[in-house]
Amino acid sequence: MRRALELARMGEGRTNPNPMVGCVIVKDGRIISEGYHEKYGEYHAERNALLRCGEDPAGADLYVTLEPCCHYGKTPPCTEIIIEKNIGRVFIGNVDPNPKVAGGGVKILREHGIEVESGILEEECRKLNEVFFHYISTGRPFVAAKYAMSADGKIACASGDSKWITGETARKQVHMLRKRYSGILAGIGTVLADDPMLNCREEEGVDPVRIICDAHLRIPMESQIVRTADQVPTIVCTAEETLETAAGREKADQLAAAGVTVLHTPAGADGDSSYAKVDLKNLMQQLGERKIDSVLIEGGSKINADAFASGIVDKVYAYVGGVIIGGADAPSPVGGRGAESMAGAVRLRDLTVSTAGEDCCITGYPVYGKDREDI
Amino acid sequence: MRRALELARMGEGRTNPNPMVGCVIVKDGRIISEGYHEKYGEYHAERNALLRCGEDPAGADLYVTLEPCCHYGKTPPCTEIIIEKNIGRVFIGNVDPNPKVAGGGVKILREHGIEVESGILEEECRKLNEVFFHYISTGRPFVAAKYAMSADGKIACASGDSKWITGETARKQVHMLRKRYSGILAGIGTVLADDPMLNCREEEGVDPVRIICDAHLRIPMESQIVRTADQVPTIVCTAEETLETAAGREKADQLAAAGVTVLHTPAGADGDSSYAKVDLKNLMQQLGERKIDSVLIEGGSKINADAFASGIVDKVYAYVGGVIIGGADAPSPVGGRGAESMAGAVRLRDLTVSTAGEDCCITGYPVYGKDREDI
Repeated sequence: MRRALELARMGEGRTNPNPMVGCVIVKDGRIISEGYHEKYGEYHAERNALLRCGEDPAGADLYVTLEPCCHYGKTPPCTEIIIEKNIGRVFIGNVDPNPKVAGGGVKILREHGIEVESGILEEECRKLNEVFFHYISTGRPFVAAKYAMSADGKIACASGDSKWITGETARKQVHMLRKRYSGILAGIGTVLADDPMLNCREEEGVDPVRIICDAHLRIPMESQIVRTADQVPTIVCTAEETLETAAGREKADQLAAAGVTVLHTPAGADGDSSYAKVDLKNLMQQLGERKIDSVLIEGGSKINADAFASGIVDKVYAYVGGVIIGGADAPSPVGGRGAESMAGAVRLRDLTVSTAGEDCCITGYPVYGKDREDI
Repeated sequence: MRRALELARMGEGRTNPNPMVGCVIVKDGRIISEGYHEKYGEYHAERNALLRCGEDPAGADLYVTLEPCCHYGKTPPCTEIIIEKNIGRVFIGNVDPNPKVAGGGVKILREHGIEVESGILEEECRKLNEVFFHYISTGRPFVAAKYAMSADGKIACASGDSKWITGETARKQVHMLRKRYSGILAGIGTVLADDPMLNCREEEGVDPVRIICDAHLRIPMESQIVRTADQVPTIVCTAEETLETAAGREKADQLAAAGVTVLHTPAGADGDSSYAKVDLKNLMQQLGERKIDSVLIEGGSKINADAFASGIVDKVYAYVGGVIIGGADAPSPVGGRGAESMAGAVRLRDLTVSTAGEDCCITGYPVYGKDREDI
C-alpha cells in the first residue's frame, strides 16, 4: 500500500476534481503491475494497472488507495474489470466518500466472491486526498491559508517591505503548492500593494483560477491580474451593494469585458455600501458550485482574519523564515479583531513541522468553536 | 567521541561556569573507562575517567570533547595525569578557548611524546558548550531570547490573555532550559502583568539568578520576586537617573534590605529621568563580571525589542503553538520600532526546528549588521 500511495502522488495536480489514486497488483509475492490515476478524464488507477499486466492477474491481490468505483463516469466502473480479470483479493485504503460509490464498490466485489479488506493505511490514504474528501462531502472547496512570516511573527516590516522573509526553497514550495490548488485567493489590499500575477511558475503546472476579494471593485484595470484575465481564469468577487451603484456596475462591465468573471455575495443587513464586505462563506459555496474543489489563500492580515473569522480555513501552511523583523506596527499574518481570550482562539490540530531550505514550514488543521471538544 | 559527548551532557546545569566535558578511554578496541565533569569545582572528565579505570590505561586512546587543561585551577592539570598514566594517543573535540589553555594542553602532551589529534566532531563539541565558548572569549554572558508565540505570531490576545499558547511539553522544556542558564531576565512589564517567580521547577535544578530590568524601580515590594529575594538570588537593574532622585534611592534601599542586588547602568545623554532606560549592553558587561555566564530572556515585546536592538541576543528559542489568535492589536514577540526594511532585519543562521509535544520549537543564532556578509 505504501507503494500505491507513492504511485498515487504521481498524479498530483492533474487529477482534480478527481482524487489521486494508486494501485499495485501482487501475485505470488511479486509486484506484477502498477498504475495510478494519471489525469482527470482518463483511466483510473486499477484499470491502468490491470491493462498493463505482463501476466494473467487471475487470483492476484490488488492494493488500491481508494475504493474502486462502481458507476459509469468518464470511464467504465473499475469493479467490472477487477471481476473480469478474476482478482483474488482486494485491499483498500479508504471507502470512497463519493455518494455514488460509498461502499457500493466493496459490496459488488464481495457479491462476486472477491475477498475485500478496507482501512489499510487509512489515515495516510485519506490525507493524500484531503481536498477530494472535503469537497465531495461538503460541496465547498478545501481552503488552505498560506503565509510567510518572520521568526517573530511578522509578514512585513512596518514600512511594508517583505522581500524576502523566506528563501528560494520555501518560495519554490509555494509554487508547488499552487499547482495543487484549483484557485488562489487574495484580497484587494495585496493586489494594490504588490500587483502580483498569482500564477504557478512551475513547469507543467496548470495555472489555478485567481480569485480576488474586492468589496468596492477597486482593482485597477491596468493591474497584472486584469491585463492577463484573458489568458488565466480570473474571478473578482464584490459585494451586492457595490453593484447597486452606477460606478460599481460600470466597473463590473469593464472587468467582464477584460475577461474577468465578476461574482458578488449578498448585501449585509445594514445595506450601507461603504461598509460592504465580501461574505467569504457564501463565496466558497459559489466556488464549489463552479467545481473549484480547493482554494489557497495567499493574502495579507486582513483577508486571513476574515477567513478565520468566517471559519472557512481547513488547513494552514505557515512558513517561518530565519529573520527577526521586530516592530510593534509591523503586520502579522492574521489581523482583524482576533480572539478576545485564548478560549476563543482557533486551535490547530495535527501540527506538523518540516524544514524548507533555510526556513521551515508548519502545517495544521483549524478546529472551530463547535468542534473544540475534539482536540 | 559520540559517547564522550553523551557523557558530557550528563553534567548539564552543574558545571557552570566550567564547560561540560566527557571522556572515554579505549584500549584494544574496548571502552575501559568513562568519565565526565560532574560539577563545578570537582574533578575534570579526564581525571574521573582515568581514576576509575579497572585496568592499566597505559598505551590506551583517550577521547575528550575539550582540550585537557594544563593549569592549576580548582583541581590539578589534566595533562599531568594523562602523562603519568602513559596514555598513548589523545583525540580532542575542540582546543580550549580559555586563554589559560588555548593549545597549551596539546603542546605539553606532544612534548611528552603523546600523539594528539584535535577537531574530532568539532562542531558538535563546540555547540555543546556554546555558553562557555562565548563567555570565555567575550567576558559577557551568552544571551538567549525565548518566547512562545501562536502560529500567527502573537504572544497573547489583544486582551493580554496568553494561557496557554503552548502545551505541557513545551512548558516543561522551558523549565529544562532555565536549568541551563545562569540568569533569567525579564522586564518590569512582565513582572507587573504576571507577577512570575521565574524559578526552575525541575527537580535537581539550581534556580538561576533572576534579573529584572526596571528603569524607574516600579517593582512592587509585595511581588513574588521581591518577597523571595532572600531565598533566590535576585538582581534589579535600574537607570542611573532613577538613583539620582530621592524616591529612587529610597526604593533601592528597600529592595536591598529585602535581599535584592540593585544594579544600575549609566545615564543616557539627555539626562531626563522620565526617559531613563536600562542599557542592556552595559548590564551584560556587569553580569559577566559577576560570573553570570548565560542569560535567558523571558520577556515581552518590549524587552525583546530592546535586546535585539542592542545586539546582545546570541540565540533565539521561538516556541510556536498550534493556535491562531489573530488581532491587529495582539502583541508579537518583538515589538519596538523594528527594522525599517528587510535589509536591516536581524537574520538568524543555523535555523533548527523540532517538535515539542503538540507544539514546535525553532532555534537560530542572530547575525547583526557587521557580520551580515557571513550568512
